[in-house]
Amino acid sequence: MKVVSAIKRVPEDIKARLKNNFEQVEFFFCHGMKEAKALIAEADVLITYGEDVTPEMIGEAVNLKWIMVLSAGMDQMPFEEIEKRNIVVTNVRGIHRKQMAEYAISMLLQVYRQAKTMIESEHNHEWNRRISIREINGQTMVLLGTGAIAQETARIAKAFRIKTIGVSKSGKAKDYFDETLPVDRIEEALPKADLVVAVLPSTRETSYLLKEEHFQLMPDHAVFLNMGRGDLVASHVILKAVRNHQIGHAVLDVFEEEPLPEDHTFWGEKNITVTPHFSGKSPQYIPRGFDLFEQNLQSFLNRDGEMKNLIDPKRRY
Amino acid sequence: MKVVSAIKRVPEDIKARLKNNFEQVEFFFCHGMKEAKALIAEADVLITYGEDVTPEMIGEAVNLKWIMVLSAGMDQMPFEEIEKRNIVVTNVRGIHRKQMAEYAISMLLQVYRQAKTMIESEHNHEWNRRISIREINGQTMVLLGTGAIAQETARIAKAFRIKTIGVSKSGKAKDYFDETLPVDRIEEALPKADLVVAVLPSTRETSYLLKEEHFQLMPDHAVFLNMGRGDLVASHVILKAVRNHQIGHAVLDVFEEEPLPEDHTFWGEKNITVTPHFSGKSPQYIPRGFDLFEQNLQSFLNRDGEMKNLIDPKRRY
Repeated sequence: MKVVSAIKRVPEDIKARLKNNFEQVEFFFCHGMKEAKALIAEADVLITYGEDVTPEMIGEAVNLKWIMVLSAGMDQMPFEEIEKRNIVVTNVRGIHRKQMAEYAISMLLQVYRQAKTMIESEHNHEWNRRISIREINGQTMVLLGTGAIAQETARIAKAFRIKTIGVSKSGKAKDYFDETLPVDRIEEALPKADLVVAVLPSTRETSYLLKEEHFQLMPDHAVFLNMGRGDLVASHVILKAVRNHQIGHAVLDVFEEEPLPEDHTFWGEKNITVTPHFSGKSPQYIPRGFDLFEQNLQSFLNRDGEMKNLIDPKRRY
Repeated sequence: MKVVSAIKRVPEDIKARLKNNFEQVEFFFCHGMKEAKALIAEADVLITYGEDVTPEMIGEAVNLKWIMVLSAGMDQMPFEEIEKRNIVVTNVRGIHRKQMAEYAISMLLQVYRQAKTMIESEHNHEWNRRISIREINGQTMVLLGTGAIAQETARIAKAFRIKTIGVSKSGKAKDYFDETLPVDRIEEALPKADLVVAVLPSTRETSYLLKEEHFQLMPDHAVFLNMGRGDLVASHVILKAVRNHQIGHAVLDVFEEEPLPEDHTFWGEKNITVTPHFSGKSPQYIPRGFDLFEQNLQSFLNRDGEMKNLIDPKRRY
């Protein structure tokens, strides 16, 4: 059996561990898809980030039975061809949760503690004790989304003694949320929010879900943080909310257009913090992805039906 | 019975609540000790930050039975006179724990996530995804001190799945510490530390406890954070540790000399972050102090022997 990986820079210890643990498997660790393509005709299993798999490649890959996508987004996968061939697809949904929870807590503390002002004072050698610091304990956090990432963020928020309210499609109760509401009752949650953390995937239903009226409902000191998808809310709506003091601050990691153009208004806006879509970045990303791959490879070989994060090609998630 | 408070800017709702809850007590809320002094001869109870109580005042305060110190440091209290007169002293030990835990976690995240570089890139309108971010989950934190503040920091660290090792005088086990060691075995803890959080009070035993040899024991990527007392370690030892890459970064909120002079080397040092002794600052400081005062006032009036944070004038803590 042949596993072809298109993932660049897989650490040597991971390669060695896989080869050691699966002696019956031949592994080909390629430096990107260009290299991997040459081997695709022989591959039983393909490991990829999922952005560069073409319908033609699926045609060529006559032995292919399983694609492991080392990403959570599946927008660019040729699911029609995959479905016809009954190729199994799995992804790494869930491995972003630790770093994204740390991103959220870190950025909220940065805003609440006026870190930018503090760093500027430090830069000026200024012993500035006039900076007014707020505490995050005792605050209320409304999370838009109650999936793995939202739940991990809520779990840590609870340790800070933050009240957590989750808003999801179903409104189903979940661990680490003091309350959960269905999205059609979002208006009840927003007025209570000191902190709003959006971590919704991009679907037809979430696209431009947040409108001006939603920002009007938030308290004027609220901090809005978006680390989900850039099309949750139009840029001009965020800008208006901040400039009209409907909210206190916006922390944005995702945008309608990425990279955010150099001349975009957001960059210079006092009460907007821009980060370059890196909430999901982690030095542990590849190790965690391959940990999940290894578990799935065991199940794949055993045919035990226990593979994790199986994707339904019809629903595409 | 007369309560004289020397605390400036006590919020009106707190004054009203106390007057309402204790009709048998006369409250005098003064704007600082200068004003309070004029009433000291009649005071049964004095509320003070404890820095401006003189032996002469104790002499004048012929009715004084209880001093509530709205601080944790008691260095400047005239304990000899207080002991002679059998005046009860209580302080607010423990009310710093929430803000100081938030300070510690926030600053560690700031260093691990390269917030200064990120903010600089943002300032330059630069979509910079090359910043290498580390996660704090999975790290090991050595806390010097296992009191209320260290324990609260350890509690939140545990939520981040950080391993916590506490070092204290006794080494007695405490909640939220995976391990605890007595200070004479500190050498066993330091080599394991990704994060070192010092929150020791200033006593004869902790004064200049940390020496060059201790920094040599830490891993070269370790982040050292001191929010306890400035005389835990000499400035030149920290500077050497950072410059010689014995540690990766130092976050300092307390110093041998405060305010830190404008021309001090620390300010400009790449791998040192200076904050102006504000880890204990909080908008909740006075409310929390008066909450504790109110509980103690109830016990004081009931003579139920339940007063919290009683200070032994001999041991001075």
